[in-house]
Amino acid sequence: MSESKKYLLTEKDIPTAWYNIIPSMPTAPRPMLHPATKLPLTPEDLYPLFSEEAARQELNVTDSWIEIPEEVRDMYKIWRPTPLVRARGLEKMLDTPAHIYFKNESVSPVGSHKLNSALPQAYYCKQQGVTNITTETGAGQWGAALSLATRMMGIDLAVYMVKISYNQKPYRRSIMQTYGAEVIASPSMSTKAGRKIITDHPNYQGSLGTAISEAVELAMSTPNCKYALGSVMNHVALHQTVIGLEAEKQMEMAGEYPDVVIGCFGGGSNFSGISFPFMRHNLSGERSTRFVAAEPSSCPKLTRGVMQYDYGDEAGYTPLIPMLTLGHNFSPANIHAGGLRYHGAGSVVSQLKTDGLMDAVDIPQLESFEAATMFARAEGLIPAPESAHAIAAAIREARAAKEAGESRVILFNLSGHGLIDMTAYDRYLAGDLANYEVTDEEVARNTSGLEKII
Amino acid sequence: MSESKKYLLTEKDIPTAWYNIIPSMPTAPRPMLHPATKLPLTPEDLYPLFSEEAARQELNVTDSWIEIPEEVRDMYKIWRPTPLVRARGLEKMLDTPAHIYFKNESVSPVGSHKLNSALPQAYYCKQQGVTNITTETGAGQWGAALSLATRMMGIDLAVYMVKISYNQKPYRRSIMQTYGAEVIASPSMSTKAGRKIITDHPNYQGSLGTAISEAVELAMSTPNCKYALGSVMNHVALHQTVIGLEAEKQMEMAGEYPDVVIGCFGGGSNFSGISFPFMRHNLSGERSTRFVAAEPSSCPKLTRGVMQYDYGDEAGYTPLIPMLTLGHNFSPANIHAGGLRYHGAGSVVSQLKTDGLMDAVDIPQLESFEAATMFARAEGLIPAPESAHAIAAAIREARAAKEAGESRVILFNLSGHGLIDMTAYDRYLAGDLANYEVTDEEVARNTSGLEKII
Repeated sequence: MSESKKYLLTEKDIPTAWYNIIPSMPTAPRPMLHPATKLPLTPEDLYPLFSEEAARQELNVTDSWIEIPEEVRDMYKIWRPTPLVRARGLEKMLDTPAHIYFKNESVSPVGSHKLNSALPQAYYCKQQGVTNITTETGAGQWGAALSLATRMMGIDLAVYMVKISYNQKPYRRSIMQTYGAEVIASPSMSTKAGRKIITDHPNYQGSLGTAISEAVELAMSTPNCKYALGSVMNHVALHQTVIGLEAEKQMEMAGEYPDVVIGCFGGGSNFSGISFPFMRHNLSGERSTRFVAAEPSSCPKLTRGVMQYDYGDEAGYTPLIPMLTLGHNFSPANIHAGGLRYHGAGSVVSQLKTDGLMDAVDIPQLESFEAATMFARAEGLIPAPESAHAIAAAIREARAAKEAGESRVILFNLSGHGLIDMTAYDRYLAGDLANYEVTDEEVARNTSGLEKII
Repeated sequence: MSESKKYLLTEKDIPTAWYNIIPSMPTAPRPMLHPATKLPLTPEDLYPLFSEEAARQELNVTDSWIEIPEEVRDMYKIWRPTPLVRARGLEKMLDTPAHIYFKNESVSPVGSHKLNSALPQAYYCKQQGVTNITTETGAGQWGAALSLATRMMGIDLAVYMVKISYNQKPYRRSIMQTYGAEVIASPSMSTKAGRKIITDHPNYQGSLGTAISEAVELAMSTPNCKYALGSVMNHVALHQTVIGLEAEKQMEMAGEYPDVVIGCFGGGSNFSGISFPFMRHNLSGERSTRFVAAEPSSCPKLTRGVMQYDYGDEAGYTPLIPMLTLGHNFSPANIHAGGLRYHGAGSVVSQLKTDGLMDAVDIPQLESFEAATMFARAEGLIPAPESAHAIAAAIREARAAKEAGESRVILFNLSGHGLIDMTAYDRYLAGDLANYEVTDEEVARNTSGLEKII
């Protein structure tokens, strides 16, 4: 660990444009469909939901580069550029010939990469005079990021937090409240979707799908109020490309280029952020890097999901998205990596995976915590349970390199730290955690009613 | 907040030597005394307790600069140099003409400045072949830092954690365990000091003084085992001067020099670290900066303590230290800033305060949390409850500058983040926290038996 080396950029190296991968894709993703008309979405269809600029970015299939507003770049300077680290401590612990690098997104004030998109989303809302935003949060990383971003913009925020997390993760809730956000346990009595589910199932502990339905409903029924989402959507992946664009420069400083790029996978925001800038060199034929999304075995949308049109939420308020999905009613086991408990992948990643331009692996919960603990002891940083999946995949790669007796340059994204998740570590160290399997029958049952993509 | 500006150094700017203030002091601190013989301590007296190099540093009154070993500088590179930030968001919120800067020590992997001394202490032990270290921890910041430092050195660590924190702050305990340390609730049955207190008071919830006694006893009775302390001692303050030495260069980059330098105060480690390098220019007559230690009103050793010889621990195992003290049996209220709940100040700070070379203010608990919440909303960082005392003092200065209609350059140390302390914020936001007063009678009673300093 004493030899681990940081590669640092200066503020002027913060990218001036986000990278939009869509124009370079060999097969463009199918269009999202309006939930009522089933016609392809237009930006105008999204205006009631998102800021106009976010709506335009969401459906922009022509511009490879989209300028980052000067004001957003100024806010990025609060913690960006983030360090790239050569993890020599971990290499030594694994006795591997591989070179392991990680991009450290945990250094943001909210402890994760989520602020990269929360800031521009709040900024665009502010620009058009929006006074209120709603959102949902599972584990709380996105909710914390948007709480800070809206506070900086002087916008009021209401966060629907999955009830089980609201009760089990009071630290995350307190962080949002400290920044001044209103946090509501979901399902709640404040929306039609919430009241229905409470009436039908009084003890229901909530899900991300329900919380999205509540947040969308409140945004649609409140004047001057928009909704913001922390993953899945194209504009979120777009904003996250600052991660990979910086990492590209830093790998150059290190004099190497990754053979494999790894990110953990919930809805796709951090995986897309670290991967897409490197993937553009594959798409142009210059490179042949492998890309690996690391998802939990208990929520295996990429490795076992079905490519279908599906809703982003439980109640079916969102557009129909062409996605690799386990079905919007799929209820994943209550693993500690709450940020990865989402049923589907965004349309771009779903298409890239379908076209064989990226891989995915599934990681059992115990393997993720074993990897996290090794990493903490080797590199000093306690990773978020979500990020631990990327570490586990990186360790698999490093071990494979050792077995093959070959060098290999591995880059993964450390999307966040785990200091708010110590309960999970406590339970792991006490031997109280388990692995969870998903049966084929579960997948088939939850995806059977969905519109197939032909 | 969007305008807040970071001043960043590169790895080559990490100081090559620590600054030892003692040779420049107009009045040298009185010597520490051996607890049995009452004779001035020699380094050899300290060898059973500390590494030999730490013992020599502790009593070094001649060298103004002590070289930082190359290996320690390499480890500092994991997170150092830390940023200096111009807190324009906070300035704007306070509408003050003052310029507020903070040194952000919260970016270390363990979330506080404590790693600055944990690393060299563990390193010197390793150099002389020590295999085991003991320590104590109150809130857990020091214990977490030493857990990581010893893990990096391959040394086993036993941490005596004050029982009430062990039970109330499980996150801190889990962090130490994740790094591989053994954590024991104090008082425990593993030492004579612990057994005695458990026998006399079966429900005693522990104190820092008791935990120190247990850690010292275990170190003294175990072969090849040393003890390490995170504050109070001269060698700890010495190691922390990297903070101020970096900040000095960064203030130069900003084109300013502080009119006032502020640190929160428990035993003195972070206050000394930010202050002493700037204070050397006062001692040489070049500058007339004010230095303000911010202590909690419930543990006011600097503002209301007595200058006497006192023990560092409850059982009286440590040397007698010439200190501003509330008495080693003083039991401070259970405030959330656990790191500031210590009865005395180190000998150097006690002498500087006595000689009028620095000031101190006491901050009530509610004011500290009000300041912390303002800072979180203005600058995005949730501060440790300890650091919140420095922020509160900085806000007082900024408001005074506004009232006086004058510019003022304020520098404070953000010693750590508060992400592990969200329970405290939760209670503050719920209106559940209180202020605590110390009566003159309490101070008089606890200091009456001590050896006066004539």
